Amino acid sequence: MGASLALASRGVGLATPNPSVGCVIWRNGRVVGRGHTQPGGRPHAEAMALAQAGAAARGATAYVTLEPCAHQSPRGPSCADSLVAAGIARVVVAAPDPDPRTNGAGLARLTAAGIAVTSGVRRAEAESGLAGFLTRLRLGRPHITLKLATSLDGAIAMADGRSQWLTGPRARAAAHLERARADLIIVGRGTWDADAPRLDVRLAGLEGRSPRIGVVGRGHGLPGHVRHLPDLAALCADPALHVLAEGGMGLAASLLAADLVDRLLLHRAPVIVGGGRTLGDIGLADLADAHGRWTAQPALALGVDRIEAFTRKR
Amino acid sequence: MGASLALASRGVGLATPNPSVGCVIWRNGRVVGRGHTQPGGRPHAEAMALAQAGAAARGATAYVTLEPCAHQSPRGPSCADSLVAAGIARVVVAAPDPDPRTNGAGLARLTAAGIAVTSGVRRAEAESGLAGFLTRLRLGRPHITLKLATSLDGAIAMADGRSQWLTGPRARAAAHLERARADLIIVGRGTWDADAPRLDVRLAGLEGRSPRIGVVGRGHGLPGHVRHLPDLAALCADPALHVLAEGGMGLAASLLAADLVDRLLLHRAPVIVGGGRTLGDIGLADLADAHGRWTAQPALALGVDRIEAFTRKR
Repeated sequence: MGASLALASRGVGLATPNPSVGCVIWRNGRVVGRGHTQPGGRPHAEAMALAQAGAAARGATAYVTLEPCAHQSPRGPSCADSLVAAGIARVVVAAPDPDPRTNGAGLARLTAAGIAVTSGVRRAEAESGLAGFLTRLRLGRPHITLKLATSLDGAIAMADGRSQWLTGPRARAAAHLERARADLIIVGRGTWDADAPRLDVRLAGLEGRSPRIGVVGRGHGLPGHVRHLPDLAALCADPALHVLAEGGMGLAASLLAADLVDRLLLHRAPVIVGGGRTLGDIGLADLADAHGRWTAQPALALGVDRIEAFTRKR
Repeated sequence: MGASLALASRGVGLATPNPSVGCVIWRNGRVVGRGHTQPGGRPHAEAMALAQAGAAARGATAYVTLEPCAHQSPRGPSCADSLVAAGIARVVVAAPDPDPRTNGAGLARLTAAGIAVTSGVRRAEAESGLAGFLTRLRLGRPHITLKLATSLDGAIAMADGRSQWLTGPRARAAAHLERARADLIIVGRGTWDADAPRLDVRLAGLEGRSPRIGVVGRGHGLPGHVRHLPDLAALCADPALHVLAEGGMGLAASLLAADLVDRLLLHRAPVIVGGGRTLGDIGLADLADAHGRWTAQPALALGVDRIEAFTRKR
């Protein structure tokens, strides 16, 4: 399943509107087929892996990060049917698919065909990679990551707005990798006007992974390649699966106040600013209400900086 | 040396005005004497360990966390002389003593008497425990730790001042342990007036370790047990070795602006406050000047909170 999870991670930010799934087919201790959801969402991971395996799929075991789909689409047969037709003997699944068109029907179809099925293997890891798809299904909107680069005292900039460079080159490279995994990067109109940010992926080999750009707020005078999002309702309606919010503090406070942040990404530099620009009011009435909302994920030290992620408990 | 370092740590906050030193004497693979600097600074660690070893000290090896003193005082002979007189065969030292009355003379006296001397063993760890003493010698003032309990967005309180409880019971217990290792706890006059904090050690068995209390600012109406520190110059002149600054943000900003913080201790709760009270102006003119000042020490997870320490590079 580790190999399938790694394959799945390659398509995050590309497979939209579909989830990025990974599939590895093993037969007699050898990998005979590998696949992940292709850009734009098709072919699915199972179709890629089965095509590679060919006749070797007969009697083999398939490791898939998401329950194979049970619904046929105009773009191809269902993956459950394809696995059955190829003669796969065993399917190991990480996460169930809550999509109402599958939602257990994929596993049921496999079992009915005499295939041995195991589900729930490394489910939490798989669901982390499927966060955009799962948030879309559960909450009807994209999965939103809020990234903030801050000092130890919570400043994102000095009082006059200067913020270059708070974090070092390695943390900034990690920020670009984060961009490559998003479908849409958003900034507030104030940040757009003040910084004219490029918001593209500037990592060798990943230049083609630059996501769409959205600006939240007034639309007047925005260039044509920028998606105008008049408010957060428009953001929620965007077809993106993974949204990365990069600035500024006004947008950050709005997203937090509306409880739209699913993942908080802090890039912390070991500096003290003092009197800098910090997060504004998010409508918190009582400190007790702030507790129990965030789960710390493993942190990463990059140079002198530290990258911390917190996921919203829901 | 590990045992000597552990012994030394027992006296931090008690041995003032002397450094808290640990000494363990080994002979034929057995510990024959152990000691650490006693409350008030005397007897010294070596005197305690030698007294326990008695005749067994002859031919033994002494592990000491600080170079034995070379200067006789009205309160007793020098430790270098005592080690020679006891017939110690070998002395292993962690940190040299920069006190001008010793400063290499302790080691020289041992060597001249035919004792085998090794110095510099686990020096960095020893100097961390001796920070108060070393700061006093090098900078002519106490070693100052600034403790801040903050949210992920750098707030120490909500906009209206409410801050109970930002961090959980385990982090608060760690804060009391930190108090037990200080000679003096200071708060600003505003915090004193607003919160009337007890500032004592509320840990079972350590009640007797509550340090002196100082209030920085106006002195009018302070109770008799509180030391009045009209300004930061008065703080620097205090005979304490280890000072713990606990609040509020005004005092914190003043200490940072004056570059008087040697160690920054952050208790971070996984909560977002938004628009809370954060650190004020510390006179930073350029973000570049903020870099390269702090070294991150290993962090500690306590419950959902995280305790981070940063030491000032000098």
